[in-house]
Order: sequence, then structure tokens, then C-alpha cells
Amino acid sequence: MQLNNVLPLQNWLKSYSKTSMTNDFIAGIIATIVMVPQGMAYALLAGVPAEYGLYCAILPTLLYALLGSSRSLSVGPAALISIMVASSIGALNPQTDAEYLHYAVNISFLAGLFLIAMRLFRLGSITNFISMPVVSGFTSASAIIITASQLKHIVGIPVASGLSFDETLWQLGTHIGEINYTTLFAGILSCFALWYFKGHFPKLVKKLALPTWLDQAISKAGPMFVVLIGAVLVGVFDLHETANIAIVGLIPDGLPSLQFVPVDIALWKSIALPSFLIALMCFVTSITVGTSLAGKRKERIDANQELLALGAANLGAAFSGTFALAASMSRSAVNHSAGAETTIASMVCALGVLLTLLFLTPLFYFLPLVVLGAIVIMSVSSLIEFHQIQRCWKLNKADAYSLLATFITVLVFGIEIGICVGIIGSVILIIHRASHPHIAIVGRVGKSEHFRNIERHDVHIDKHVLAIRVDESIYFSNVQCIENFVFEACYKRPETRHVVLIFSSVSFVDTTAVDALDNMIGKFKNLNVQLHLAEVKGPVMDQLQDSQFVSDLTPGKIYFTTDEALKSLTTL
Amino acid sequence: MQLNNVLPLQNWLKSYSKTSMTNDFIAGIIATIVMVPQGMAYALLAGVPAEYGLYCAILPTLLYALLGSSRSLSVGPAALISIMVASSIGALNPQTDAEYLHYAVNISFLAGLFLIAMRLFRLGSITNFISMPVVSGFTSASAIIITASQLKHIVGIPVASGLSFDETLWQLGTHIGEINYTTLFAGILSCFALWYFKGHFPKLVKKLALPTWLDQAISKAGPMFVVLIGAVLVGVFDLHETANIAIVGLIPDGLPSLQFVPVDIALWKSIALPSFLIALMCFVTSITVGTSLAGKRKERIDANQELLALGAANLGAAFSGTFALAASMSRSAVNHSAGAETTIASMVCALGVLLTLLFLTPLFYFLPLVVLGAIVIMSVSSLIEFHQIQRCWKLNKADAYSLLATFITVLVFGIEIGICVGIIGSVILIIHRASHPHIAIVGRVGKSEHFRNIERHDVHIDKHVLAIRVDESIYFSNVQCIENFVFEACYKRPETRHVVLIFSSVSFVDTTAVDALDNMIGKFKNLNVQLHLAEVKGPVMDQLQDSQFVSDLTPGKIYFTTDEALKSLTTL
Repeated sequence: MQLNNVLPLQNWLKSYSKTSMTNDFIAGIIATIVMVPQGMAYALLAGVPAEYGLYCAILPTLLYALLGSSRSLSVGPAALISIMVASSIGALNPQTDAEYLHYAVNISFLAGLFLIAMRLFRLGSITNFISMPVVSGFTSASAIIITASQLKHIVGIPVASGLSFDETLWQLGTHIGEINYTTLFAGILSCFALWYFKGHFPKLVKKLALPTWLDQAISKAGPMFVVLIGAVLVGVFDLHETANIAIVGLIPDGLPSLQFVPVDIALWKSIALPSFLIALMCFVTSITVGTSLAGKRKERIDANQELLALGAANLGAAFSGTFALAASMSRSAVNHSAGAETTIASMVCALGVLLTLLFLTPLFYFLPLVVLGAIVIMSVSSLIEFHQIQRCWKLNKADAYSLLATFITVLVFGIEIGICVGIIGSVILIIHRASHPHIAIVGRVGKSEHFRNIERHDVHIDKHVLAIRVDESIYFSNVQCIENFVFEACYKRPETRHVVLIFSSVSFVDTTAVDALDNMIGKFKNLNVQLHLAEVKGPVMDQLQDSQFVSDLTPGKIYFTTDEALKSLTTL
Repeated sequence: MQLNNVLPLQNWLKSYSKTSMTNDFIAGIIATIVMVPQGMAYALLAGVPAEYGLYCAILPTLLYALLGSSRSLSVGPAALISIMVASSIGALNPQTDAEYLHYAVNISFLAGLFLIAMRLFRLGSITNFISMPVVSGFTSASAIIITASQLKHIVGIPVASGLSFDETLWQLGTHIGEINYTTLFAGILSCFALWYFKGHFPKLVKKLALPTWLDQAISKAGPMFVVLIGAVLVGVFDLHETANIAIVGLIPDGLPSLQFVPVDIALWKSIALPSFLIALMCFVTSITVGTSLAGKRKERIDANQELLALGAANLGAAFSGTFALAASMSRSAVNHSAGAETTIASMVCALGVLLTLLFLTPLFYFLPLVVLGAIVIMSVSSLIEFHQIQRCWKLNKADAYSLLATFITVLVFGIEIGICVGIIGSVILIIHRASHPHIAIVGRVGKSEHFRNIERHDVHIDKHVLAIRVDESIYFSNVQCIENFVFEACYKRPETRHVVLIFSSVSFVDTTAVDALDNMIGKFKNLNVQLHLAEVKGPVMDQLQDSQFVSDLTPGKIYFTTDEALKSLTTL
């Protein structure tokens, strides 16, 4: 029982059929076809050699497959996390490639530890405090930074990884004379080919009426085709020498050697904040993708289990000597639509990547970097969601502002500060909303027993009796606002002799609120106004009776219904 | 008009009568009688010579009298602020008295600037985010620390000011052999005398049937009597030499010379946090006292105006070369009950203190420190509110925990960390509450049109139709909790075919909420359940119509009332 909780896979295997196995196997192969080119591309984005992207997709993917609670997530290199890794390491100014990689491994390690620590404290609900507009603003801005960072591959100008957005643009601008036009042409062609393979090619394949699995596999193989065609063209025409097109070069065949991460407190201190933010965004993006896919087939994601699984996957990345990872939105969608039934599909994918590393790396020797750059750009282009600003503006102005603020901060001040601003902004918004409860003066609808907001309905109110409905529980952060509202209303209506607070939506009160209510009785007496309550719920009644409030209220009464209160007070 | 807003006093003077003037004059004299001994005592608490406490009560009190919006607050040296000053400076480890004073002046200056900055950003509502239990825990623990810090005067053991609670106790414990028994005897006697003058003496005075003002003046003069009797006894019997009782000694007569505070960025950086916390607690305690007193006589305190007035008062303290201050609870209560009608009373008090400094300082030469220590201890003893823990425990467990946590943190880790923990705890509590909205499954009461929570009422529910009332506005921090509740309820009732969400208390939705609701429609379809809404308010309806939600909801409907929804769905 306990073990089943830790290994969701065990539960699934109980009803695992031969059909499920076939489905998982096919989905796994399709996922491999997508994973290999994308993995190499995201490794470049993270600023490390291409093979490290494939290392990300073996041990980490296996660990997620064992522990994850989502049947469809494809955990491995992910664009957002890769750019965060590059920008974090860029800020540390590493001198050699080995140092760069050392930072990357330690960031994976710390991110894994942070995720597992969050699991221990059961902080799965932490995603509740990051609003959709903040994530959207962050994602759009990051996608723009990612695109800018890959332009160097498209135009063939060597620029360092991990520069900030403005530095990248500045470097590109000042070296604009060095554009390699063959590379640029190849880049545009690759982008066009990827666009074609994504949008139009699947329709063409469909017409062939192949078996579903083959149709799926061919439809999703666009990036793989572009990679292979690119490598063949460069190899055949020696373009890396004649046209100076940058290529991946020798990929060491064989598997990554497993390694421990030595304790280095000084280093860990310097990367703690970026690692935490990477862990946070790893969790937020993965849970967002996972939840939306699970919703499509009656499943539920266990947020705390995901923290464990993603933590283990990132530790796996550290032990494989590679960079941090997360669930990739695009690959997970492929996995899902390819019919993955359990995480066995991910295991098949890990095996596929492993076989690729063992036997197929020579194929990628001539693979031009420009093709990988194009793959990154085309994958993230759909993440730029300008239409969200318009949508938020219509729905909720505060959302539109927080989206824009996050978006601009990420572009101007970088990804880390951007996330921090987004989170702090979200907390301020929560506090602001929690301190401005909804309150309404209500009046009687016709001769009925219904009472409605006087600002929105044509209702009758008595000039001596003011009925005010408080629409939220009362506690320290909102009681002042309620008190101000009530007295403001009294000052505006000097003929008021009775105030009835309708507590129909008040589920609890805290000590500060009880004290404030108690003080209000005295202040009302000074205004020659008597306070009453109505529709007090059971638990709130108990709380009030435990305090002095009820005796202080006398001769004010606590009425069962608003109707009763108003009938009794109006006739006085 | 604008000027009246800045100077509340101007408004009051419009209807200022001769009676008001007389009342203010009498109240001012009574306040002086209380201010002089208390000011000197709080100076000792702050770790500076006694006269600096009186300096706090001239220019600062005048500035508050000009700008303050409370008619009764007595702004000047305050126990809590004094101990915070002492502990902040203690942490900086000053080497000389001049350095100690230099720190004190700069803290006053920065605290004043912070208060005025908070005024500029209109942060008067910042007090909403500090709950009564946090303030109570903080005050009780500070009162204990204050008492411990004054024990040295009672037992006559020289211990430095500004030590932490445990250091103070340790110093006292290790020097226990050095107790001066005459001093201890004098201390106990002083405490007893102060207790008698506070509790029993006023009753005795009342029997004399004196005019009210004289009755009041004599009743409140207890500390002044004890100070004078102590000074006379020491002077007559030469106790400072024969029994080694510590005395105040020579107080330089005349006024403090006004001085500028030179810019010193390095110093300001080191005292920025404690100065900010002092500004915050100055504002919180003053506004608490002010609000409770204003409530007693149909007045309102303008929080933002108070920020300005308290900021000016603290800048005044800095320019007078003395320590930070706030409204004192005990003195303000005296001021109020003595009948102060406007801040003219405070001006009279400032004048009284000024005259004391000019002409009466020789009276205090022989004043024993033990008497001042006793005054401090007796003033703060009423701040230790152990009964609040019991009260909070009954009313609201979370309040009891936050009270205890703040109390213990202040005692163990000091005042600064204690406040920070209290504030962070409050924010976490707000976020927690904001993310756990009240939700209830409701059923029909009898054959009526009323629907109530099934957990608390005996109501009828249809097995195919689940009616769920959401009692708060829906936004990013609580939408997940609502979704979990709704699906949990559906899983528990597999026969459910229709879910009606009752939006009677939903005043707005944000983008994250609309997205989540939209996703829920799809998830419900997987469960073969149809979603409907009921009692949607106008503005929320507009928001939903602007999004895709309404079209996605079809064939689900939005019903005007819950009754209508359930009647229509039950018959299906």
C-alpha cells in the first residue's frame, strides 16, 4: 500500500494488457524520434555540447517513469529550463567549458534537492500562488529571449551562451557584418521545412491511409527528417568546409559515466537562488502541462508525487553529468496523442535514446548547428502568446498588468528577477484581494423575503435600518475595510438607528475581528445606532459566544434571518 | 481646504471655545505631571541620560500637536520604542556614550523618513496586515524584556543597556552577589508605592470631593510623588553616598540645541532595518491606541495623516538630538480621561516639560535610578497579557499559535526577528486563508426555495444533481482548491449527472479562474457530467461572456436562481 503510493506505476501495471504494451511501445518510439533532435537542440540552448541533451533523456527519464504520477508527461530537456540554466551560468562567468559543465551539474543537483525538500514539506500547492498571467508573461518573454539566443546559429555569428537579452542583441548587432549567408539561407530553409512538416505534412500523410501508429510516427518525424537531410547535405557537399557552416562534430559514442556530485558549499551558496527558481519553474511548468493532459482522460496528477519524481529526475541529471530538465510541453503533447498509456512509454523512449547514443551518433557528425537553432526557434514560437494580453485586459485588468509587468521585467532585467517580481506581485495581489472583501448594502426585493445589493437591484430600504451583507469571512486583514465601509454608510445616512450585519457568508471570525466588532458596538452607541447580526452560522455563533461580544451587543439581537431582523426592526 | 487636510488642528480651532481651552490647559498640566517622570524613566530604558527623555517631549510633541489627527494621543517617549532603540544600538556595539547617542539620533532620523515615505505611498493600511495576536505576543514579550532590563536598577547591579533578554538575565545571575540591598528595598518600596498610587490613592482622593481637575491632577501624580519623595529621601540622608544608591545626577539645565543630521550612508545602511521596524511599530502602536480612544468619542483617525505626524515627530526627535518615540498608551489614556479636547493639550504639555527643563532640573539631582526603574516596570506590567493566549485559543487556534510564535521568537531571538516572524507569519496566514475558500454542497430546505449546507442542515438533495455553493470570489490562489473540492464531491457521488455551481458570493473571477472553469467543463464531460451555473452576478456574467466559457458550457446553462436550476434539472 505504502509502496504503491510511492510508485504509481505499480498500480497501473495491475491492469496492464498486451494492447497497452503495444500502445506504449509505439508511443515510446515516436517520442524517441522527437526527443533526439529536440534534446540536442536544447543542449545547445543550455550552452553545452549536443550529446548532453541526450544524456538528459536516459537516467532522468527512467527515474521519472518510475516515480511520476502522470501517464503522458515527457520529462527530459525543456526549452525554458535550458535557457534558465544558460542564463544562470552566464551570470557566474565561467572561464572554461569544464567549469561551465561543473556549474550545470551542480545546478541540476541543487534543483533536485529543492524539489525533494518541497515534497518533504508537502508544498505541492505552491503553484496556487502563481497566476496564469504571470506564467504567461514569463513564458512569452522567455521564448523571445530563447529566440534571440538562437539567432546566432541562424546567422552564423559566434556569440557566447547565457548572455542577457540586450547583450545578445548588442553582440549580434555589432557583428552584423560577419553574417554567414549560406548559414542564414540554411536557417531560413530549416525553419520553413519545420513549419511545413508541422502544419501541412501530417495532412499529406493522412491521405496515404497508413496504420495509425505509422501515420503518427511519420507525421511527428519532421524535425528528425530536417536533421538527417541537413546532415546529409552538409556531409555530401562538404559545406562545413566550403561554406563554413558550423556542425555538431564528433559526439563521443557510449553512455555518460555516472558520477557523484562533490559537496561544495561555497559554490552551492552562489547558485542556490537560480537553482531554486529552476526547481520552481520545473515544477510549475510540468504540473501545468501534466494537469491539462490528465484532464483529457479522467486522471489526476498528484502534485506532491510530481515534486518527488521531478526531484529524482534532476538528481539523475546531476549524476549523469548533465543539465537540469523538466516536462516539455511539446513532447508531452506528442506522447499523449501518440497514445502513451503509462510511463512505460517513457522507458521505451529512454531506451531509444540510449540505443541512439550507442549506435547512431556518427549520423549526427555533419549535423549543422543552424538546424538545431531552427528547431529551438520553431518549438518555442508557439509559446509567445501576445493574444493573452488582450484577453486578460478584457477579463481582468489586474491580470493584464501582472502579465505585462512580468513580461517586461523578464526582458529587461532577466529571467530570475522576472520570476521574483512575478511571485512578489502575485502575493501582493492576494493580500490586496484578501483585504478588500465584498460588502453590500442590501434591500428587500418587492414584498419577498429576498434581499439584494441596492446598487444593482431596485429594492426597498427603510431609512432607519441599514442592512449590510458581508460576503467573506472576517479576519485581521479585512476587518478594517469592513469597519470603514459600515461607518461610511452610517455617516451618509444620519437617520440610521439600527445596523444589521448579515453574516450569511461569514464562515469564521478571528480574534482581531471579534475585538473590532466589539469596539464597533461602542462606536455605534456614540452615533446613537444599535448593532444587530443576522444569519450567523453555527461555528461563528460559537466563537462569538465564547467572547464578550454577545453580552456587549445587548440590547442588539442576533436574528436567524434577515427577513426576521428587518421585520422586527422596521416596526419599532 | 488643502491646508485643513494637512493641519487637522485648524478645523478644530474653528469651534474652539473658552471651555475647550480650559479643558485642554488642565489636561496639558496633568499630562506634564505624568510625562516628566515617565520621560526620564524611558530615557533610561533607551540607554541614554534622563534629560533626553524630556527632550523627546518638546519639539516632537509640538510637531505632533500641529499635524496629528488624534485629539488624545500623547506622543513622546514610549516604552516599546525605547527598548527597541536600546536593543538596536546594543547590536551595533557602540564604544562610547557619544557614539551611542549618535546611533540613537540617526535611528530617529531614519524612522522619521520611513514614516514620511510610507505617507507618500499612502501605506496607512499596512496595519491591516498585522493581526491583534501578533501585536499582543510582541507586546507581552517586549514587556518581559523591558522588565528584565530594568531589574538592574532595582537590584543595583550595573549591566549594560541593549543586551538581549538572555544576556541580561545571565549578567544579573552571574553578578547576583553584588546586589545592593538598600537599592532593592527602595525598589520594592517604589513599586509598592506606584501600585498604591495607581489603584487605591485615586479612591481616597475622590472622597475629598475636590474640583474634577484637581482630583484628576492629584490622582495621576503618583509617579511624580514617588520621584520627589525618592529624591528628597536620598538627598536628606545622603543615601547615594552612604548606601551607594545610583542617582540621576546633574541634568544640564536649558533646552536641547537643535542640530542637523549629517548624511552618513554607511551608518544608515547598518541601521536601516531596525529603523524601519521602529517606524513600523511606532505607527502600529500609535494607531492602535489612537483608534481605540477615537472610537470612544465619535472621532476618526486618519492613518495616513498619522504617518505624516509621527514621521515629523521622529524627525523632530532627531533634530533635538534624542531617541525615537511614539504615542504612549498609558499617557494617552491619561490625556483622554483628563479631558483633552484638541492637541492644544499636547502643546501645553510640551510647554510644561520645557519649563521643567529650564527651572526644575535641580529637583531631580538626587532622583534615584531605582525609582525610574520601578516606574518603567509598573508602566509595562499591564502590557503582559497572558490571558490573551487563553482567549485566542478559545476563539481561533491559528491566532493562538501566531501569538505564541511571536511571543517566543521575541524572547528567544530578540525584538527585530520577532517582529519579522510575526509579519511573515501573518502574510502566510492571509495567503493560506485566501487559498482555502469556503465551499459547501447545498440541498433544499423542505419544499422551500432555500438551500443550505448539507453538513449543517437537514436538507433534501437529488442523487443526480449536485449543487455546490462557492462562498468567495474565484481567482488564481483559490481556484485549485475549488476544483479539487468539486471533483472530490463528484467522485464520491458517481451517480451525479449535473453539477450546479452557485455563484451567489462570487463578485469577480480572474483569468486563471476562467481558464480553470473552462477546463473543468471538459473534465466533467469525461465523467459524463454536465456543468451549470446559477445566481451569477452581473459583472461576473460580463466577464464570462467576454471569454470562451459561455459557449464551451453549452448544453450547460446559466440559471437565474438555484431553485430554477434544480427544478429544471431534477425533472430531466
